[in-house]
Amino acid sequence: KPVRERQRLPVVPQGIERDEFLAALDELKAQLGGEFVEVNDKPLRDGWYMEHPNTHDMMTILDEEELVASAVVYPSTTEEVQQIVLWANKYLIPIFPISMGRNLGYGGAAPRVRGSVTIDLGKRMNKILDINSEDYTCLLEPGVSFYALYEALKEKGYDHMWIDTPDLGGGSVLGNTLDRGVGYTPYGDHWACHAGLEVVLPTGEVIRTGMGALPENNTWQTFPYGFGPYSDGIFSQSNFGIVTKMGMTLMPNPGGYESFMYTFQNEEDLGPLMEIIRPLRIGMILENVAQVRHIAQTIAVRGHPRSKFYQGSGPIPDEVLHAAAVESPVGDHTWAYYGMSYGPPHIRAYKLAIVDAEFRKIPGAKKVDPKSLPEDEYFWSRDRIAAGIPDIHELRWVNWTPNGAHIAFSPVSPIRSADAMKLFDMGKKLHHQYGIDFFPAFCVGLREMHLIVEIVFDRDDAERKKAAMDCLRDMIDQAAALGYGEYRTHLVLMDQVAGTYSWGDGALMKFNERLKDALDPNGILAPGKSGIWPKRYRGRGWEM
Amino acid sequence: KPVRERQRLPVVPQGIERDEFLAALDELKAQLGGEFVEVNDKPLRDGWYMEHPNTHDMMTILDEEELVASAVVYPSTTEEVQQIVLWANKYLIPIFPISMGRNLGYGGAAPRVRGSVTIDLGKRMNKILDINSEDYTCLLEPGVSFYALYEALKEKGYDHMWIDTPDLGGGSVLGNTLDRGVGYTPYGDHWACHAGLEVVLPTGEVIRTGMGALPENNTWQTFPYGFGPYSDGIFSQSNFGIVTKMGMTLMPNPGGYESFMYTFQNEEDLGPLMEIIRPLRIGMILENVAQVRHIAQTIAVRGHPRSKFYQGSGPIPDEVLHAAAVESPVGDHTWAYYGMSYGPPHIRAYKLAIVDAEFRKIPGAKKVDPKSLPEDEYFWSRDRIAAGIPDIHELRWVNWTPNGAHIAFSPVSPIRSADAMKLFDMGKKLHHQYGIDFFPAFCVGLREMHLIVEIVFDRDDAERKKAAMDCLRDMIDQAAALGYGEYRTHLVLMDQVAGTYSWGDGALMKFNERLKDALDPNGILAPGKSGIWPKRYRGRGWEM
Ligand SMILES: Cc1cc2nc3c(=O)[nH]c(=O)nc-3n(C[C@H](O)[C@H](O)[C@H](O)COP(=O)(O)OP(=O)(O)OC[C@H]3O[C@@H](n4cnc5c(N)ncnc54)[C@H](O)[C@@H]3O)c2cc1C
Ligand SMILES: Cc1cc2nc3c(=O)[nH]c(=O)nc-3n(C[C@H](O)[C@H](O)[C@H](O)COP(=O)(O)OP(=O)(O)OC[C@H]3O[C@@H](n4cnc5c(N)ncnc54)[C@H](O)[C@@H]3O)c2cc1C
Repeated sequence: KPVRERQRLPVVPQGIERDEFLAALDELKAQLGGEFVEVNDKPLRDGWYMEHPNTHDMMTILDEEELVASAVVYPSTTEEVQQIVLWANKYLIPIFPISMGRNLGYGGAAPRVRGSVTIDLGKRMNKILDINSEDYTCLLEPGVSFYALYEALKEKGYDHMWIDTPDLGGGSVLGNTLDRGVGYTPYGDHWACHAGLEVVLPTGEVIRTGMGALPENNTWQTFPYGFGPYSDGIFSQSNFGIVTKMGMTLMPNPGGYESFMYTFQNEEDLGPLMEIIRPLRIGMILENVAQVRHIAQTIAVRGHPRSKFYQGSGPIPDEVLHAAAVESPVGDHTWAYYGMSYGPPHIRAYKLAIVDAEFRKIPGAKKVDPKSLPEDEYFWSRDRIAAGIPDIHELRWVNWTPNGAHIAFSPVSPIRSADAMKLFDMGKKLHHQYGIDFFPAFCVGLREMHLIVEIVFDRDDAERKKAAMDCLRDMIDQAAALGYGEYRTHLVLMDQVAGTYSWGDGALMKFNERLKDALDPNGILAPGKSGIWPKRYRGRGWEM
Repeated sequence: KPVRERQRLPVVPQGIERDEFLAALDELKAQLGGEFVEVNDKPLRDGWYMEHPNTHDMMTILDEEELVASAVVYPSTTEEVQQIVLWANKYLIPIFPISMGRNLGYGGAAPRVRGSVTIDLGKRMNKILDINSEDYTCLLEPGVSFYALYEALKEKGYDHMWIDTPDLGGGSVLGNTLDRGVGYTPYGDHWACHAGLEVVLPTGEVIRTGMGALPENNTWQTFPYGFGPYSDGIFSQSNFGIVTKMGMTLMPNPGGYESFMYTFQNEEDLGPLMEIIRPLRIGMILENVAQVRHIAQTIAVRGHPRSKFYQGSGPIPDEVLHAAAVESPVGDHTWAYYGMSYGPPHIRAYKLAIVDAEFRKIPGAKKVDPKSLPEDEYFWSRDRIAAGIPDIHELRWVNWTPNGAHIAFSPVSPIRSADAMKLFDMGKKLHHQYGIDFFPAFCVGLREMHLIVEIVFDRDDAERKKAAMDCLRDMIDQAAALGYGEYRTHLVLMDQVAGTYSWGDGALMKFNERLKDALDPNGILAPGKSGIWPKRYRGRGWEM
């Protein structure tokens, strides 16, 4: 997408005059150092994954100048984060913390409120503060990426410990975990695997949670709960605090591993497959957060543009996908299951035999022989990821359209035939209605699965962006009517998604607002995040 | 202990006159039904485990009339709980919720503030609302005990699902989980295994957390987090809400299991044993929350009074314990490890061989042959519990003294030689100083362990009660000075324990108080629980 001149300058937060704002920034410069406060008035460069911007969402679905920061600041310590928070309270300036800002598909680095001052924590606060090779834990600052943590373990020769990584390894462990992100080893539920937070509250105080509240403890990362109310959860997917340190547990090297892949021929195989997966997953015969991916995404992740296969305008026809699949090393199919078995060979053999017997109950099921697959086949990327080795192969499907960008729809359901089919049918129908290619992948957690539907769009095409948005909004509403809710969402959809969690006349949101008002009386921290608006913003039409 | 006439009647909450209080109770009777509001003015009967009182702590360490309820009320629905909460706000009467009130060692059924109205939720709200045999989950009211849940699974023939039970099965699943209790299968971390709460807030509103906030969802028990801030944690070990429903996950039947027991001869073996346990536990070769128990407790749990072995007044000498051990089926030792291996025979054999090779590195280590042990040996109780079968054998050590009662000291540490020895030495020294028999048992979680020290005392002997209290207070302080904090504590020790979590000038407590004031502006719900006092009580000397 071409870099354009800025149309909507200056960006100044609501409720403060430009001069006053610039003076306030000068005050902050005096505290942090001039080079650590940047006004966001240059042309917006999208860059690419490895050189992503912190000024806006590089995959914006709105006008690119809509959700932009007025300035970006770079603290280097917890104390400086406190200073920024006190400053924001003084001038009533909205601030928006990011760790690395690679939250692509969910808003990237953009703030929810235009003109917020983005706190880029990761740039200077990027230390691995501790790796404990006896307890299998680490303590991280916001700027530590999955890659960096992985490299640090290698460097120290800690082969007995693994990390867990999401599909892309360039994001921060801390930011991903706070957004309750997911990876693909048995430690895939990142939130469940964290232990201990240091948090700057919206009024400037710092707390340490769990055992961190006990001076001189040596259990901050080994026992998550501490004593009294366990407060970590309210700092995830929220705007109640800025996390400056996080403890994370590391997985013990399982002593061997082996990826496997099965393909299933028909769309309808999804139903029986889910019934087979559920008990095996809960029983840990299927050990990792596996993916059940549709052929459309399998073709797209080969990295070629859609135009290579199809020039028509509606959604790409199934025949075209299957024709492409026939040509691929994996061969034709509709669904692919990617999993991994862990442990020494005879233990894996035991589990894999059960999986094989069960999966083959579906007529036409095929086990793909990894030896038949070339080195750059997507299978090997899943293999790395399920072994905790960061990767970026997954990015390739973003090439599907010119100026490829994407935005995610991520509803949660039980692992059941009926639920999988209802969500699949609904998504397919709406994608067809809006002329969008449908890329469904089911990520099977433990007792639930997230359907991840990524809509890939041309971020320079207003009409396609609108179609994507309309499709998303319809999917969210129709899913909610069926009883399904998103586990996480893009900034621009937060109000709508929060609105679906409406039980008891919106009781949970009223509760969240009560907490917000108590913890952030001036409403400066990430207003609108997760649909939670501070008092000062409520009833003024900020929702979208 | 003899039942005595009440010395300190009437019991009326602070800040309200007796007549006004009785009139308020009448108002509540009109709402709930007269038989569901009971004034607590009868002699206090301690009963025993299966017939425990809800009026006070049956194992009181203070004067038995100190921490008593003024009245006990029995709601039957969430709506009635709301009515009680609104009533308490109207008259500023402190209320204290219990599920079953069997929180023995931590305060039983007693309220923290004398004269509180106890809400006995379990008596009438005791339904298993759902058991989902596909998702391996259930939804429970406060009055469902581990026994009741176990029986319900048996009755329905659901052999594919196990529960996890603490050492005693008579408590409620919900109350135990809210207190972050621990059991002994791989699902032993109860808090981590729950999914979804319904909570009545101190101002009377009801919320459902996680997916429960999405109307018509079918994922409340399968996906714990929902969307936005994950608030469940702040309702554990807290006084921020009354939980009226809780979802719980159930463990899949592992397809076989086998208990094992090793004994170690010397006190100093504890150190090397911990170094062996840690990696095996984190690597899930040791699969359950196992116990490493000292010979003193092993002798005591045989159920005979101390006087059978020793009539002296100081702590029972080691020689006496060892002499008794020599006579016992297990034979002489200092430490016993009780564990269980899960899965089919060849999978267990693989893990047990590793354990055996490792444990035998400690000179004198012995594997006890279960076949050599009689049916009523304690080993078989651990066997049942590690297989999720509720039991009450553990109660037997309470017979150690006449009028046996107990109170727990439960510090958390890493699973390490140095930490185990420091805590052991400190506890032993202080027990000796106060002339108390020392019963240490280490419960090994995943990356941490809780040392559980139960002080058994004669609850009719003021001098021994004082010694127990003094010893506890010293242990808490000395442990904190070494960096160890309690994971849970008795009502009378909550202020002290909360005080040890003092990092950043008590920042966490100030944060908790901020939440308390926002959620419970009138300060009616369980004032002082976990050391959190509402505004109305602060600075008035309520701490103890
Ligand atoms: C092709 C592709 C595949 C992907 N696959 C996955 C996947 O498998 N699993 C997955 O989980 N995600 C996935 N993502 C989404 C995203 O890339 C990752 O979640 C990424 O790790 C987030 O990056 P980050 O740490 O830079 O987040 P950030 O943008 O820094 O933070 C994420 C969120 O947390 C908040 N936050 C960040 N830091 C703090 C802080 N210190 N205090 C308070 N709040 C904070 C931010 O406001 C933001 O909302 C994928 C994205 C793409 C493009
Ligand atoms: C010999 C012995 C061995 C034991 N072993 C273990 C063990 O292995 N593991 C273990 O965890 N415990 C153990 N205990 C302690 C105790 O018996 C159990 O934890 C028991 O399950 C708690 O019982 P309860 O559900 O009746 O608790 P309750 O007294 O009902 O509740 C416990 C706490 O939670 C709060 N609470 C209860 N219900 C609610 C609600 N609905 N809303 C808000 N707050 C609520 C109460 O205020 C109370 O503080 C042991 C005790 C003894 C005597």
